[in-house]
Amino acid sequence: MSTRSGIGTGIRVAALLVLAGLLVSCSGAGNKSGTDIAALMKERKLTDQDVVAALKTYTPTGRTDPYVMFSSGGHSGQVIVIGVPSMRILKYIGVFTPEPWQGYGFDNGTKAMLANSSPKGHELTWGDTHHPALSETEGDYDGQYLFVNDKANARIAVVNLQDLVTTQIVHSGILKSDHGGAFVTPNTDYVIEGGQYPAPLDGSYAPLDQYDEKYRSAVVFWKFDRAAGRLDPSRSFAMELPPYMQDLTDVGKLASDGWCFINSFDTERSHGGIQQGQPPLESGASQNDMDYLHIIPWKKAAEVAAVSGNTRTIQGMRVIPLEVSLREGLLYFVPEPKSPHGVDVTPDGARLCISGKLDTHETVYSWAKIKSLIDAGKFDGKDPYGIPILPFQDAIDGQVELGLGPLHTQFDGHGYGYTSLFIESKIARWSLGDLKLVDKIPVHYNIGHLSIAGGDTEHPDGHYMVAMNKWSIDRFKNVGPLLPQNFQLIDISGPTMQLLYDMPIGLGEPHYAQIIKADKVKAIEMYTPVGTDPLTHQEDPSATTDEKDARIVRNGRIVDVYVTLVRSHLVPDNVTVRKGDTVRMHLTNLEQAQDATHGFCINDYDINLSMEPGKSTDVTFVADRAGVFPYYCTEFCSALHLEMAGYLLVRPS
Amino acid sequence: MSTRSGIGTGIRVAALLVLAGLLVSCSGAGNKSGTDIAALMKERKLTDQDVVAALKTYTPTGRTDPYVMFSSGGHSGQVIVIGVPSMRILKYIGVFTPEPWQGYGFDNGTKAMLANSSPKGHELTWGDTHHPALSETEGDYDGQYLFVNDKANARIAVVNLQDLVTTQIVHSGILKSDHGGAFVTPNTDYVIEGGQYPAPLDGSYAPLDQYDEKYRSAVVFWKFDRAAGRLDPSRSFAMELPPYMQDLTDVGKLASDGWCFINSFDTERSHGGIQQGQPPLESGASQNDMDYLHIIPWKKAAEVAAVSGNTRTIQGMRVIPLEVSLREGLLYFVPEPKSPHGVDVTPDGARLCISGKLDTHETVYSWAKIKSLIDAGKFDGKDPYGIPILPFQDAIDGQVELGLGPLHTQFDGHGYGYTSLFIESKIARWSLGDLKLVDKIPVHYNIGHLSIAGGDTEHPDGHYMVAMNKWSIDRFKNVGPLLPQNFQLIDISGPTMQLLYDMPIGLGEPHYAQIIKADKVKAIEMYTPVGTDPLTHQEDPSATTDEKDARIVRNGRIVDVYVTLVRSHLVPDNVTVRKGDTVRMHLTNLEQAQDATHGFCINDYDINLSMEPGKSTDVTFVADRAGVFPYYCTEFCSALHLEMAGYLLVRPS
Repeated sequence: MSTRSGIGTGIRVAALLVLAGLLVSCSGAGNKSGTDIAALMKERKLTDQDVVAALKTYTPTGRTDPYVMFSSGGHSGQVIVIGVPSMRILKYIGVFTPEPWQGYGFDNGTKAMLANSSPKGHELTWGDTHHPALSETEGDYDGQYLFVNDKANARIAVVNLQDLVTTQIVHSGILKSDHGGAFVTPNTDYVIEGGQYPAPLDGSYAPLDQYDEKYRSAVVFWKFDRAAGRLDPSRSFAMELPPYMQDLTDVGKLASDGWCFINSFDTERSHGGIQQGQPPLESGASQNDMDYLHIIPWKKAAEVAAVSGNTRTIQGMRVIPLEVSLREGLLYFVPEPKSPHGVDVTPDGARLCISGKLDTHETVYSWAKIKSLIDAGKFDGKDPYGIPILPFQDAIDGQVELGLGPLHTQFDGHGYGYTSLFIESKIARWSLGDLKLVDKIPVHYNIGHLSIAGGDTEHPDGHYMVAMNKWSIDRFKNVGPLLPQNFQLIDISGPTMQLLYDMPIGLGEPHYAQIIKADKVKAIEMYTPVGTDPLTHQEDPSATTDEKDARIVRNGRIVDVYVTLVRSHLVPDNVTVRKGDTVRMHLTNLEQAQDATHGFCINDYDINLSMEPGKSTDVTFVADRAGVFPYYCTEFCSALHLEMAGYLLVRPS
Repeated sequence: MSTRSGIGTGIRVAALLVLAGLLVSCSGAGNKSGTDIAALMKERKLTDQDVVAALKTYTPTGRTDPYVMFSSGGHSGQVIVIGVPSMRILKYIGVFTPEPWQGYGFDNGTKAMLANSSPKGHELTWGDTHHPALSETEGDYDGQYLFVNDKANARIAVVNLQDLVTTQIVHSGILKSDHGGAFVTPNTDYVIEGGQYPAPLDGSYAPLDQYDEKYRSAVVFWKFDRAAGRLDPSRSFAMELPPYMQDLTDVGKLASDGWCFINSFDTERSHGGIQQGQPPLESGASQNDMDYLHIIPWKKAAEVAAVSGNTRTIQGMRVIPLEVSLREGLLYFVPEPKSPHGVDVTPDGARLCISGKLDTHETVYSWAKIKSLIDAGKFDGKDPYGIPILPFQDAIDGQVELGLGPLHTQFDGHGYGYTSLFIESKIARWSLGDLKLVDKIPVHYNIGHLSIAGGDTEHPDGHYMVAMNKWSIDRFKNVGPLLPQNFQLIDISGPTMQLLYDMPIGLGEPHYAQIIKADKVKAIEMYTPVGTDPLTHQEDPSATTDEKDARIVRNGRIVDVYVTLVRSHLVPDNVTVRKGDTVRMHLTNLEQAQDATHGFCINDYDINLSMEPGKSTDVTFVADRAGVFPYYCTEFCSALHLEMAGYLLVRPS
């Protein structure tokens, strides 16, 4: 498992520093800082290449990163925000999993948001985030919103990039899993959520021997209302799909604008049953040499869905039935080899690149050819559900032999595609021009997705690529059987790819990430005016914007407590209620200094809120236990932070 | 807010690289890697000092860090494991907050552990970790266990460093908050948990006008059974303390072995009541010039507690009442200025260093003088609760003027103390020999604790120091009103302190950290034999160690499902139950390859487990909803990971 074989360089650091004009007279051993660089390189066993990599990534204090990566956190249920090239984690954003440091899932607003997106009777406290999608304007990231899916429970979340806070979670009710989300159309008209494991769309029970008839998949097109910053279920729709396991999605742009693409595996409709003598899914779903890329004109589908009578409402979602899709020309297949995983549209929208997990090639489809075949009605038969199949050979520009286990492809905007090779633990760089393999670089180990700055947009930035490796094994100090993932930063600006940095991910299991220019993300410094509700960015009607208005208001068994926080006290600081009272606390942080965040926790009552400067929020609880319960600020806010405390007294009667 | 003023250096990197013998003939512009170092330094605006810092921290792929830092996560409720000097996060350990990536709080064992440590009727889903304490042998970290407190709910957790998994959480029931935990005695006989905000020890209600009579604090001495790896409540005891707000704890060693020290603030017994005309706690607790350091002979206290009749049992915990402590000589005070925060025992155990938040000095107490005063019974009166007070001037060696807002002190083993200055945003280095300020370095910003490798043990390693800054403001790309904390790595091996690295903490609000030599932490690579329960490190009686034994066993309405996981299938992969059945799943990961972790989730049922290689665990749920629920492996484990899935079918009847 050599780590250096991918880096061929003949640099001589010293020589180049001399060129840089830094050479000055040398007074021999020892210097003012007590540091001898030669000894340091020797002591830390740094090669010349290491020095280059260090200088390409080290970011001095106060200097900010030029790029920001938004990575899914996998089954941690969060989104991770990382500075590039320093590869420092700037924030974990709570999305599907409650997180107390952010107070996420603890205040009334976020608690209700999580509960309302959960199935009845089962409050979900986690999610399996896979594919973050930055909002786009004209095919490029605009830095306004981020969408991300929960594969395990088929939900889509909206994160507002003004403050990096999750503000909405939707659940269609028709899907059980949504590996194919989230992906946006070039102007973020729709956020696309493709299903994976088929099941009856109405949520009912059906035995597995009715798989072919009653199990279905679907793709949901969530209408995004950019002005409101929200997905609008009433203007959203879905399309019924056959019971194959749909996988990744990508959306056309420029030449292919108006279309979207979803690949699939298990067109064999295998569904396990090992103990009943059936093959396990891993082999049952790998029998056919080809599965089907789903080709969908989403703009046309939206028009069809808008016509009364064309949709059936299932679980509250308007669904275009398969027969309507066939009648209206909304769904076409083209074969794709073998056990396909990634489908990636080139920046110009003219080609689709498909990786088959069990093929050694990247298959490059021509959008022009596909479109001509569709327009000409030239099909190679139909699948069992009547969906027309385009002829494979007529649809492709060619195939590039890359290596073992190709998964995903990104683009650098300079004519190259980069494809992750899971089984080989490498990334292949290949030329879009002549479909030739150019270079490979080893990664450590078992790479899933890869991410290039802007690498899935119309205008990739190139320069930085991150290999999102699933296994790290020997890369870091062993921290037990559960190991971190390994993000490896690779410089792709030169003629050969250069490994720069290994970054462990010690919480979560990222799948995909997008890298955006940092200056496109314009986060606010505080909530203004004081009393703003982060979920609406409007003034909270329950806010208390002056300490003098902090108060306790009783109405029968309901006690409203209007609390202000400012360094270093809470008002009120003594609150007495009776056992059984419903206590509604309305809190406002009066600070208008950046970083002057307070926390608010109550002993034993499982409450902790994060109160950023200017923020207002609420928490409601029943004081069902008598006693004395200290509350205090949980953010170290001032020298007298420990004194920022009060007492909740719950009288027995 | 200059960032460089603390780094005085005359280094000339190039010159030193020349010295290092790296200079070779130079072919002018351009080189094999396409990288021009001079251009790189210019482009990235790196100074000579930056280059040195980069080379002191950059850790090439596959190279592991020589030190590991265990940091509390504050109100994220977790512990963060960080490599030093690379400052990369290796892991977040779930402690008080459920965390789905680790399956923590999702399987039966960890779910029960969290529930059992919660007050009745209020399941706690977070904690406020403050002070991690590595287990010690003869006053030095031994790398076996880590203890950490939950200040908000007065709990102590035990983390097993074999696998970095939390295995026990205890709650005494007598404390409401425990800022003064966790601290260990030199051989980890006891883990000490000091209280903070007073309340009736029996958990009852008492109005605030009975504060002096009915409110109390306490310190709990948890007996640690090292062989069992568990705290033993039945052999633990507590001491009643007056209703002051106890703050930090430290434990004597060598000269002061057998004693522990707890400081306090609010000896004024102020407790808020702003709206009733009382001063806020921040001023009410800051009226006296001196509060009291609590001096306790813990070995003697353990002997006293062992004698029948000396303790009262409150909430199941044996408590030594104040009058017994006074009778037996278990509690002494010495005044400490002003609004004291940190108390830190020097490596030789001969001195105690106390920082007063509102004083500009570090006050250095002599243990020998304190001990002589106690032995001679030389007291300066008593506090209102009858506790003897030692004369301040006779107890100290001196005071060092350091600056504004001193909080905490650590030691480098080379004769220096390092004290964080919150208000000044600096660290002061001062000489233990002559009690003189030597140097200061600015930090960014609002430093709380600081941590030096081994800096609170008998044998500090020195070299690396981390400033744990509470505010970061302008140090990183703005990610919204809620900003990361900032850990700054500082090289203290030279004559001047040198800032090396800024590390954002994007999840959690760390308070304290300990830095241990990496080779002392010997984590296992997998669970062996297959079928091991991580909570006991014993074979799980419900484990299934052979795929052939995977099975579904029905007993009335209880269905036991014995599941095996191995790349890339689950057995059984189809499970049918009836609505209302109680399903008990017993899962075993058959893998014995490092990093071959599987996940296990069930759609809609809020279940996600982490199955590290060889691990066995259980999850129980009621199948209270009919339908089709896919389950799958949530860890990307192989090229056919998506095919590692199955169906739970819940029949309506």
